[in-house]
Amino acid sequence: MTDIKEIGRRAKSASKEVSNASTDVKDGALRAIAKALIENTDHILSENEKDIAGAREKGINQAMLDRLTLTEKRITDISDGVIKLTMMQDPAGIIESEMTHPNGLRIYKTRVPMGVIAMIFEARPNVTVDAAALCLKSGNACILRGGSEAIHSNIALANTMRAALQSAGLPPDAIILVEDTSRETATGLMQLRGYVDLLIPRGGAGLIQSVMKNATVPVIETGVGNCHIYVDASANLAMAVNILDNAKTTRPSVCNAVETVLVHRDIAQSFLPLAKKALDAHHVELRGCPETLRILREAIPATEEDYYTEFNDYILAVRIVGSIDEAITHIAKYSTFHSEAIVTESYENSQRFIKEVDAAAVYVNASTRFTDGSEFGFGAEIGISTQKLHARGPMGLQELTTWKYVVMGEGQVR
Amino acid sequence: MTDIKEIGRRAKSASKEVSNASTDVKDGALRAIAKALIENTDHILSENEKDIAGAREKGINQAMLDRLTLTEKRITDISDGVIKLTMMQDPAGIIESEMTHPNGLRIYKTRVPMGVIAMIFEARPNVTVDAAALCLKSGNACILRGGSEAIHSNIALANTMRAALQSAGLPPDAIILVEDTSRETATGLMQLRGYVDLLIPRGGAGLIQSVMKNATVPVIETGVGNCHIYVDASANLAMAVNILDNAKTTRPSVCNAVETVLVHRDIAQSFLPLAKKALDAHHVELRGCPETLRILREAIPATEEDYYTEFNDYILAVRIVGSIDEAITHIAKYSTFHSEAIVTESYENSQRFIKEVDAAAVYVNASTRFTDGSEFGFGAEIGISTQKLHARGPMGLQELTTWKYVVMGEGQVR
Repeated sequence: MTDIKEIGRRAKSASKEVSNASTDVKDGALRAIAKALIENTDHILSENEKDIAGAREKGINQAMLDRLTLTEKRITDISDGVIKLTMMQDPAGIIESEMTHPNGLRIYKTRVPMGVIAMIFEARPNVTVDAAALCLKSGNACILRGGSEAIHSNIALANTMRAALQSAGLPPDAIILVEDTSRETATGLMQLRGYVDLLIPRGGAGLIQSVMKNATVPVIETGVGNCHIYVDASANLAMAVNILDNAKTTRPSVCNAVETVLVHRDIAQSFLPLAKKALDAHHVELRGCPETLRILREAIPATEEDYYTEFNDYILAVRIVGSIDEAITHIAKYSTFHSEAIVTESYENSQRFIKEVDAAAVYVNASTRFTDGSEFGFGAEIGISTQKLHARGPMGLQELTTWKYVVMGEGQVR
Repeated sequence: MTDIKEIGRRAKSASKEVSNASTDVKDGALRAIAKALIENTDHILSENEKDIAGAREKGINQAMLDRLTLTEKRITDISDGVIKLTMMQDPAGIIESEMTHPNGLRIYKTRVPMGVIAMIFEARPNVTVDAAALCLKSGNACILRGGSEAIHSNIALANTMRAALQSAGLPPDAIILVEDTSRETATGLMQLRGYVDLLIPRGGAGLIQSVMKNATVPVIETGVGNCHIYVDASANLAMAVNILDNAKTTRPSVCNAVETVLVHRDIAQSFLPLAKKALDAHHVELRGCPETLRILREAIPATEEDYYTEFNDYILAVRIVGSIDEAITHIAKYSTFHSEAIVTESYENSQRFIKEVDAAAVYVNASTRFTDGSEFGFGAEIGISTQKLHARGPMGLQELTTWKYVVMGEGQVR
């Protein structure tokens, strides 16, 4: 069995060197990684083929298979993403605020790396590189535990990055892949107090549940997005159809896609047929409340469970509501606090929605699909936090750091 | 048995009103609370006497008894503290950053209240008011679970505050005291997912352990401070004695007091007798490493356990080290990441200490006793975080808030 504590110890020790490395050294290592990924493309692709063959044997579905697959183009994109990080500001060392105490003490609130960041994620090999590069740029060591389906790809990618770290004068243990993909190892990682400073799980509800139950290290929850669009009585209906269609059909598998539309009774009769016409082009299955079914006779009855579900698919739940209050109450009950939108021409209702809806991102007259690190101007992102502590919404480099108060005196006592 | 879920539900419902209340309304409620505390002084003191009588019966020690005792003066001070909060900036609503997307979307990162903040704390009735007032000012509802020793005082204080809230037009359930002080209720509170947005335990290592083991809601660890002062070979010895004496003897029971001094071998012979002379005035018990004992023959041998201990008393552990590296390694091993100081005249060593020591606050040539909300200019504080997530060091109003991205468009889609 893997000695997970030993992995923790190695990462902690490497984290001290990375944390003290200058931006130049870290950027040099990122460039070395980007170059090595291109140079090792053939090897990485041949290892990836083993994973694909294994997945096919297990009868994995097409969407999953697509996420697992690497190509020359994808490796180039991943490498370009690493290079892009070298152009971003290093968050470590930024002085957030400063004050001089009346007695002359200077107090600086300074951003510093977290230390060791662990990630548990499922079968997308690009996450292995993205996560490692973000951690490195922000001065952290990382422990990566990917899924068994991508293990050959992940080993090839991690070894490539570790060799590049060494060539750039940084310890290879700043990036450690846990090759043992057993559940015990994952649980062990969740409980590495004293070694892991932050754990970021990236995956479905099952993984998040297990982390909540087992983790004793600090955690940031990411990803589950049961997003709503509320179409107000005053909405511009053409705009509402366009936003709904965009939020549902451009990429239904992602967490910022919409899952339920709430429609004000006063405009349901005119809005719903328009919406259906647009969504039909993508064969979106509509699951409606009884009132919806009276307007859209082909819709399927929605169950209570449907309103709780992140379909990640061409399925949309529909409910007619009598007021903005009813819409806000529905959202409060079923939401995962990710992204929520209102389409309205009423100033008052826009302000009420912004104030009263509790979510990482609240939208007025725009698609929920914008909740994303690059769209928000952060460059890369390591995930989208749906919790309130430390990070909320897209997490970039800054969210991978903490602070330290540096206090400089000349003998002051209290 | 107390229905802790029902308490969670009530607090969550009240939190929505408080969260939407204007700064004026919240400040009005704080003024009403401050006034009511003064008006109810007699009642509060007579309830406090019951707690004191109970504590005496149980044979509680003098320091604990002192922390438990309220006086007219102390109530006035508590009331003044509440008034002081009305003069501070409301963190809720502050726009931290903003950007305009190339497509014209405006994205605002806005500070918003957490929602419901729970606190579990031990016998200091002033914490009941301080915590409630900080939560109210920042737009949060709070659930307070104090210790059984202070239960009569806490009920009197909470009822006073609840009546004041009502008179100011806010729901009394914005401040709920859990009157049932059983362990089950505390555990229930730690697991109120969906109701409690943040739990802050304030107490000894036992409480923190229990929270780490049982909590499923987000937690900020506070308080345990095993702080060190390292006296470098280049230190100004008079300054070092003064800082050490201040950090040990001005208030040994607090978390920013020093517990271990690390002394460079080159100056140990001259420094230790000077330090002993100063500390003798407060009868500080010295527990030293074997080399220390050869210099200070009256000192007691230090055990390995001593270096891990937050004495909270007139006791100081002493170890002689051969280099700054040895000092940094010692601190990394035994520290609780609270406050760590170096006394040095070497620029290089000051920079190494600042960079390499992992703690909420690192000091050069100053006493560790400055790690405190008012000393750092935050006004009041709700605790001192020793974790890296969300808050590190003294926690003021800002740390009781989270963010929300407000995105305003005119129909933008992706």
